Amino acid sequence: MTTHRSAPDLTRFLNPRGVAIVGASNDLTRIGGQPIRLLTEFGYQGKVYPVNPKYGEIKGLPCYPDLSSVPQPCDVALIALAAAHVPGVIEECGRAGIPYALVLSAGFSEVGEKGEALQAKLVQAVKASGVRVNGPNCLGMLNLKEGVRNGFGGTLMLDTLKSGPIAMVTQSGGFGFGVVAIAAHYGVGINYAISTGNEADLTALDWLAATIELPDVEIAVAFLEGISDGRRLLEIGRRALELGKPILVWKVGNTDVGRRAAASHTARLTAGYELYRAAFRLGGFIEVRDIDDLVDICKVLRARKLPQGNRVAVITPSGGAGVLLADRCVEEGLTLPPLSDSTVAKLREYVAVFATVANPVDVTPQGYNDNYASYNRLIGDVLADPNIDQVILRAPRGSSATIWAKNFVEMVHDISKPVVLNWPTSPDDNADVVEFLEANGVPVVMAPGRTVHALAAVNEYARRKRHFDATRGRESTRAVGPQKLDLPQAAGTLGEHRSKALLQAYGVPVVQEILLAPGAIEKLDRSPLPFPLAVKIESPDIPHKTEAGVVRLNIGDLDALKHASREVVEAARTHDPHARIDGVLVQQMAGGLEVIVGAVNDRFFGPVVAFGLGGIFTELLKDVTYRFAPFDVEAAKEMIGEIRGAALLKGYRGGPALDVDALADALSRVSLLISDHTNRIAEIDVNPLFVRPSGQGVVAADALVVLKTI
Amino acid sequence: MTTHRSAPDLTRFLNPRGVAIVGASNDLTRIGGQPIRLLTEFGYQGKVYPVNPKYGEIKGLPCYPDLSSVPQPCDVALIALAAAHVPGVIEECGRAGIPYALVLSAGFSEVGEKGEALQAKLVQAVKASGVRVNGPNCLGMLNLKEGVRNGFGGTLMLDTLKSGPIAMVTQSGGFGFGVVAIAAHYGVGINYAISTGNEADLTALDWLAATIELPDVEIAVAFLEGISDGRRLLEIGRRALELGKPILVWKVGNTDVGRRAAASHTARLTAGYELYRAAFRLGGFIEVRDIDDLVDICKVLRARKLPQGNRVAVITPSGGAGVLLADRCVEEGLTLPPLSDSTVAKLREYVAVFATVANPVDVTPQGYNDNYASYNRLIGDVLADPNIDQVILRAPRGSSATIWAKNFVEMVHDISKPVVLNWPTSPDDNADVVEFLEANGVPVVMAPGRTVHALAAVNEYARRKRHFDATRGRESTRAVGPQKLDLPQAAGTLGEHRSKALLQAYGVPVVQEILLAPGAIEKLDRSPLPFPLAVKIESPDIPHKTEAGVVRLNIGDLDALKHASREVVEAARTHDPHARIDGVLVQQMAGGLEVIVGAVNDRFFGPVVAFGLGGIFTELLKDVTYRFAPFDVEAAKEMIGEIRGAALLKGYRGGPALDVDALADALSRVSLLISDHTNRIAEIDVNPLFVRPSGQGVVAADALVVLKTI
Repeated sequence: MTTHRSAPDLTRFLNPRGVAIVGASNDLTRIGGQPIRLLTEFGYQGKVYPVNPKYGEIKGLPCYPDLSSVPQPCDVALIALAAAHVPGVIEECGRAGIPYALVLSAGFSEVGEKGEALQAKLVQAVKASGVRVNGPNCLGMLNLKEGVRNGFGGTLMLDTLKSGPIAMVTQSGGFGFGVVAIAAHYGVGINYAISTGNEADLTALDWLAATIELPDVEIAVAFLEGISDGRRLLEIGRRALELGKPILVWKVGNTDVGRRAAASHTARLTAGYELYRAAFRLGGFIEVRDIDDLVDICKVLRARKLPQGNRVAVITPSGGAGVLLADRCVEEGLTLPPLSDSTVAKLREYVAVFATVANPVDVTPQGYNDNYASYNRLIGDVLADPNIDQVILRAPRGSSATIWAKNFVEMVHDISKPVVLNWPTSPDDNADVVEFLEANGVPVVMAPGRTVHALAAVNEYARRKRHFDATRGRESTRAVGPQKLDLPQAAGTLGEHRSKALLQAYGVPVVQEILLAPGAIEKLDRSPLPFPLAVKIESPDIPHKTEAGVVRLNIGDLDALKHASREVVEAARTHDPHARIDGVLVQQMAGGLEVIVGAVNDRFFGPVVAFGLGGIFTELLKDVTYRFAPFDVEAAKEMIGEIRGAALLKGYRGGPALDVDALADALSRVSLLISDHTNRIAEIDVNPLFVRPSGQGVVAADALVVLKTI
Repeated sequence: MTTHRSAPDLTRFLNPRGVAIVGASNDLTRIGGQPIRLLTEFGYQGKVYPVNPKYGEIKGLPCYPDLSSVPQPCDVALIALAAAHVPGVIEECGRAGIPYALVLSAGFSEVGEKGEALQAKLVQAVKASGVRVNGPNCLGMLNLKEGVRNGFGGTLMLDTLKSGPIAMVTQSGGFGFGVVAIAAHYGVGINYAISTGNEADLTALDWLAATIELPDVEIAVAFLEGISDGRRLLEIGRRALELGKPILVWKVGNTDVGRRAAASHTARLTAGYELYRAAFRLGGFIEVRDIDDLVDICKVLRARKLPQGNRVAVITPSGGAGVLLADRCVEEGLTLPPLSDSTVAKLREYVAVFATVANPVDVTPQGYNDNYASYNRLIGDVLADPNIDQVILRAPRGSSATIWAKNFVEMVHDISKPVVLNWPTSPDDNADVVEFLEANGVPVVMAPGRTVHALAAVNEYARRKRHFDATRGRESTRAVGPQKLDLPQAAGTLGEHRSKALLQAYGVPVVQEILLAPGAIEKLDRSPLPFPLAVKIESPDIPHKTEAGVVRLNIGDLDALKHASREVVEAARTHDPHARIDGVLVQQMAGGLEVIVGAVNDRFFGPVVAFGLGGIFTELLKDVTYRFAPFDVEAAKEMIGEIRGAALLKGYRGGPALDVDALADALSRVSLLISDHTNRIAEIDVNPLFVRPSGQGVVAADALVVLKTI
């Protein structure tokens, strides 16, 4: 196994030379007995060492009284004892030189306080012994190719499981192993499957990092309820792009109800779904939402052909299917450009006069008499079209299908553009043809919508891979170096003026403003700033100024200014008699398109910047995007493009194009501010930031920074 | 067949006593030969009469020289002749007393001008003869139960097709018959399938109307590229609700690319997808988008249990699956309420201590030792919970599954609440259990997301059915009777003032305004209306006033009014020296939440009203909803609730609730205006209509009506 900085070497855990079964039972239906059957009946070539002082032998194997008496090499101890005994056995593993332990036993953090204490003891034992532990409360792991079925549960006993270049890491063993069985039924072999259980030591991310490094793994699948190290997820995503090994990620626990359920069954806390999605977008992840898309996408990926662009040709002998596939392509972000003139001319030479030589190509029921030779010719000509990156094909059925398939497979073998088949009939109609095609690396998907969805998902992965490859040399540039900030020791909210000072230190433009004592305002004989002005209370104790009634806008003359100052001071007193008042903030009114820039220090993902249009866009339509800080201006531009309302920035309804460069610059600077000071800054809220026409910049009209204690 | 007003009686077409095959061939692989095989090898009990003067007999059947010599009763003539002969044969059918003809022949409107002429001749023959024709350019039709396989193509020859209480109408024969084969593979039998081809006579809607009346049809499926009679679609949708027979509708040709493809292959023009969706929402339609959801939803519907509300309990032995199913339920609009206290108490008596007695109910791996008897007890107790309308269940697998399933089927047999099973493992693992469950009316869906989606779709149908049943007695009330309008004879745009007069005639409030000659404004010595005012050119030739620069807003005094009047007259002259100027419109400024009310006279659906929030909501976010005119205030309120931005009307961010009653009233009145005058009004555009706080009404600030010629 090539080791990568973030990946532990777990090769021997997955392919052990010997496995000791601690708590072995001679009742082969029990948790301590099932692994003995599994490791002796499915071709495992390593040694199996039952450990239990009660027995001399189990199922013909010598049984050992304890781990110290187990012969070496023994790479894995599978532990099926009652929870209370587990920490001690881990220490025993350490003494016996067994590097890995697989703890099936339940009764740890998933069962409340008492179990949590036990899990803490287990973690202690891990640290003390140096043994790497998977589990507890897990179903085990699979390496089908080597016959390693290390675990328990009926699904592991199925002889229909099949190997393939895929590794699955699952935080739900019961569900995940079910998926392994289902995928096998649909022709997708998952060789490695790891149920991570409570993750007292090794986490799903450890396994993901390790398995994508394995030379026999081309695709990883992760069923995740929650992870605690968001930055590592990002790192693994980048590594996946670097290796060209996509990770199909199935994230659950995304709604309030789902999250509550996730917490109740494994006590796993989890960040907001939107942060996961932001992480997935940046790496070699393909999000899946059901078993079908998982299977379909694996099939398309297994063909090892990535498209160079998102242009699709649809070829079908059924007009209706062509219409449907065209619809779905457009809906999924793929394009169906016209065929090039030369391709059209070529096709016109031999297709039937009633065929539609457009895209979709509807060949009508021709070709029945030549074993679809002309259909293959057409497919080849369309694949050669420079306008086309890939083809979706409705396969022919019937008596000619066998010959057609043979010729088709030969033809596409050396063509680097992907071709995906949508099967037009029942899976049991010409089933041998489907089998032949799949055995020869041609993806066949049954339902048309699913066909397009799988191809679109692979296109999105391919796009990211191209972007990664194109930009991997590029250094991220800082618009401003780390700034020393003058921050109070205490946690809590800073007033608006102080908050803006922090933004200014990082070069984010703010409105012109001046903080004055109420008495000083009374004595003014002219305005310190040009009208119109806004007047606000500056107080760390009144973060929601509008709601507290301590803001006055559009002040046009000196009298109004003084009046407003008196009003806001009085309103502040009424709102909260104990509020500290640092003065009255007099600032210039600003205008432009209202956007919101936020930043938080997420417990799992670290500093994150949020961006959205103001008002209802953010609050009602949830049109917000997230990116992990720090990031540079280029990344900020990508981020801006991610919101649905981005069109407003380009000059909406004849309005001028807005200053997207300045906006991107401000976003990047906010990301630097929070990431340079993660130990102190908990939250930043710039609301609103006004974006002005191109060349005129942006300006923060209000801001709020929340500090945490050092 | 019970006949319904809109449904032709096509029983004998689907179940003919005899079929004449015109253009019969003794080569049984040809289009004229295949039907002979199909009608003699799959159990058809009626008579088969090959017609071809060239032969004495084909496949042992006497062959007739022409239709007049075919014995009676013969209900259907299947025509497989070259296109040019078809119209003549239809007339022959009429003379021979054959009521139905099925035209497989291609070469009609789908092949351009010459074909269109031939199709016109065919339509003539239909009218002259009274024969009802299906096709031309179709693949035929199926009635599997009676062995009627009337058509051609390999899919019809499959012996895996199976009967069931479902009828499918498809505008794409190739695709549709493929779906019939695939559905059969997944256990869903479609008994009737009709490929409608070019629809020279009988349309997909005729067939849909007819098949839902059949006593042996419980569910209809429609694969549609486009229909020409939108109102009939609405009527069929209502009838489906009345009969309690859902129509699964698969509409394609919805994107520009797809629509273009649809037009190219059948020359079928089609209305905007959004109008179809509006029609589907109002009737007993369930929109499907792929083969899987079609199959899954049919399975859930076949159980004949509709939920009384959208509250779901999820019961699973796998925590991960519970989290996932909970997520999907929430995303699909279902709710997972807590179980009632009494249910929780009941469950606590016998579930394992580690089980989560919440919703989802995660029973953990208990129950393995009692053949899942306690699992069934738990399911029963949860189903009895008054908080719960239906259950999603992860089925157990393994050796106890058979006994469990038997007990489960008995238990749920008499429970009216739906239970849907999500299969946790491979379809070939315990396949006999799946078969047993499905044979006993329990829906089993393989993938978890699909399980929830199918149940959610049935919930939406059930909701509509309940709403239909609850309101079917309710009379739609008109807010205003039909008004006689004073409309110019010519087609074209009316000026704003004249347009608003039409709205006023129907009681839609408009801003106070007065139309004056420019000269009259110059002579004013006081304002005719209170300030602030708006000034606009009134001209039927300048529909886009803002773009033409002929609008001035926020006018505060008389001088400004006169100045503005001169400006807009000048601007109008500059914009279009030939524009007719009917005067200068002086109107009061109005305010409120900006909404847009539009109405068009759609070619396919007739008068339709559109509603959305103003500006970016409508234009950028496409947050618009449609309803067919006329409709009453109650319907208008439903319509208002359909847009995503509807929350803005309820009082957003502490603002007052807006006058939704007045808005609904205005929408209803606009719907009456256009539907009372469909022969003259082509379009109405009220933009903006201002919605004021509750009790303060709405007011149209600008309006435009486009007339068509009489």
